[in-house]
Amino acid sequence: MSVTAAVGFSASGVAAGIKPDALDIAVIVADEPVPTAGVFTLNQAAAAPVVLDRESLGRSALKRGIVINSGCANAATGDQGIANSLAMAGTLADQIGCEPGDVLVSSTGTIGPQLPMDLVLPGIRFAASRISTTEESAVLAARAILTTDSVIKQSVAGGDNWVVGGMSKGSGMVRPNMATMLAFITTDALVEPTVLNDVLRSAVDVSFNSLNIDGCESTNDSVIVMASGASRIVPDHDQFASVMEEVCRDLALQMAADAEGASRVVTIDVNGASDDGSARALGRTVTDSALVRSSFYGGDVNWGRILGALGTSVIDIDPARITVGYEGVTVFEEGMVAAFDEPDLLETIEAGDFSITIDLGDGDGRAIVVTTDLTPEYVAFNGERS
Amino acid sequence: MSVTAAVGFSASGVAAGIKPDALDIAVIVADEPVPTAGVFTLNQAAAAPVVLDRESLGRSALKRGIVINSGCANAATGDQGIANSLAMAGTLADQIGCEPGDVLVSSTGTIGPQLPMDLVLPGIRFAASRISTTEESAVLAARAILTTDSVIKQSVAGGDNWVVGGMSKGSGMVRPNMATMLAFITTDALVEPTVLNDVLRSAVDVSFNSLNIDGCESTNDSVIVMASGASRIVPDHDQFASVMEEVCRDLALQMAADAEGASRVVTIDVNGASDDGSARALGRTVTDSALVRSSFYGGDVNWGRILGALGTSVIDIDPARITVGYEGVTVFEEGMVAAFDEPDLLETIEAGDFSITIDLGDGDGRAIVVTTDLTPEYVAFNGERS
Repeated sequence: MSVTAAVGFSASGVAAGIKPDALDIAVIVADEPVPTAGVFTLNQAAAAPVVLDRESLGRSALKRGIVINSGCANAATGDQGIANSLAMAGTLADQIGCEPGDVLVSSTGTIGPQLPMDLVLPGIRFAASRISTTEESAVLAARAILTTDSVIKQSVAGGDNWVVGGMSKGSGMVRPNMATMLAFITTDALVEPTVLNDVLRSAVDVSFNSLNIDGCESTNDSVIVMASGASRIVPDHDQFASVMEEVCRDLALQMAADAEGASRVVTIDVNGASDDGSARALGRTVTDSALVRSSFYGGDVNWGRILGALGTSVIDIDPARITVGYEGVTVFEEGMVAAFDEPDLLETIEAGDFSITIDLGDGDGRAIVVTTDLTPEYVAFNGERS
Repeated sequence: MSVTAAVGFSASGVAAGIKPDALDIAVIVADEPVPTAGVFTLNQAAAAPVVLDRESLGRSALKRGIVINSGCANAATGDQGIANSLAMAGTLADQIGCEPGDVLVSSTGTIGPQLPMDLVLPGIRFAASRISTTEESAVLAARAILTTDSVIKQSVAGGDNWVVGGMSKGSGMVRPNMATMLAFITTDALVEPTVLNDVLRSAVDVSFNSLNIDGCESTNDSVIVMASGASRIVPDHDQFASVMEEVCRDLALQMAADAEGASRVVTIDVNGASDDGSARALGRTVTDSALVRSSFYGGDVNWGRILGALGTSVIDIDPARITVGYEGVTVFEEGMVAAFDEPDLLETIEAGDFSITIDLGDGDGRAIVVTTDLTPEYVAFNGERS
């Protein structure tokens, strides 16, 4: 269901010819301008659509629609790239009867080439003519935003008579360039723009921003949410935040499971940190390590690499107070290896996905980070020439 | 020749039985206490010998010897580990007639296990009995510090009647745990401890610290230099610094060429940064990227990944002012892909090692960083269970 689950939204996905033989343009349209919020890549080489969306949301948080293309990132494309993104927004605006500034734009695909506008603009007009509130349209939209993903990612969760639904793509890695993750979420809850923005930011922190596969924020990463208010229900703040988190986490886990070349999803519960931000930073340091992720591939219990990675963080740690566990079995504590049944534990984690706990012995800060193993297939796949 | 090239030093390498069938203990001995400097890992989980060496050099910069073992890192070993490192120093000190505080200690190998002291201490006594100033002894020492290295690394360079010689191990990755790099350098130039320290730090910055293979500083990384002054020549400061740099760079390049699982060495000249430190940090960000290093493996000209990696740095960049070149051919400039003969360039870099230039268009800051490609073999190798 995803983006059409909430009342007040239509969507479509079409094949415009940017990609040889796959859907490549999606649109999401609200019945009227509605509160909208976005979280975008911090990459300094941000793509043209990201630059424009940030400016557009800075001017007004009320938007009518989003137009998305796959197959070309419109990144590192200079002034022409900016003009092309503006033309995409303008074309959808013309079709649905609003101002160009009421439309956001997202792109994903190869970095460098200019968009084939002779295909893109007719494609947007066609997509606008096909929008509907059906589940089928949402599925087509979810398919049109994919690049090397093998399956669509959709998630819906709800409160009392309101729902939050979303779709995403990524984030293994987008051949042939940078990893990009895009997510689009709609809700019919009645929510103020500032609340929507806060709730989205918190949810992204504990979901997409806690998923570390390539260790890189791409030039195009974007998460956008629109709230139609069509349910006329103002949700309880905590419940709304929790449902938004649920949808974001579910989409992030689907992305991890579909990461190219990965054979395992590894969840790391970093706790006992001085604060949540420190826990997240330490989790990121561990999941950035090619050595740690290679050991996940081999199904090895290699706490030495985890400890070594933690030690490189800018966050203060005290190895003597750290406890590390694999699948609930403590393997390192009090500065030394713990007594544990290694053959038994190796057999347990051999099976597939597994979890690790890292207790820093320092406070109440906690973060759960998700990563995948680094595999020979990943390197072979990403080593292919573009 | 390496550590015995300079007058005033003896060395040896023996097999103490820590490793099943290879040399595993090396000693370097000066004729008298001499100016000594060290640069050590910043890893917060630093191994016992690193903790002790830092303290020891803080007390006095005059040292008589260094004892090194391979096969066991003596890291994450608690109080027992500290006691074992002290016993290693004390044992060499007894044999050569000095105070335990006059001896530095280095270890490399597996993280976690305690040193087998029943083998280590007799091994040190044996090594002390075998020291000599011959080239053969230096080669045995260079062999005894290796872990998974396939060849010894030695380098010698000189001024007028004084020399700098060194040996190193690493830094691909030390199975089964963290990457460790060790380097030991001697000189017979007459140099004050503070000068020696400054020159070493500068040389390490542009050599070992500019070599990024695993993206991790290990628990045991150490570079130690001793200056006997036996030549009685006080070298010109700039010349001494330049010779020290030459030896460190040569050792670092030998380490890159021997990195496990690597098929290419890639040298990146980062220039036009606001200062040298920024250039080095940006070089590090690029070489930390698994995506960038996977593209090196494939022999791909993937400037998009380089630009994307640069964009994630905390250092400010302006993509519109960045120029990227492969093997002297400009592929990206003024915010967009440059016109270049791609098939021709791909053929050029297909061959093996290659170089990249990144001009940030911002100032005079420059750093040359060296890395290797990320290969399926690397992951398979490092994914093996310990």
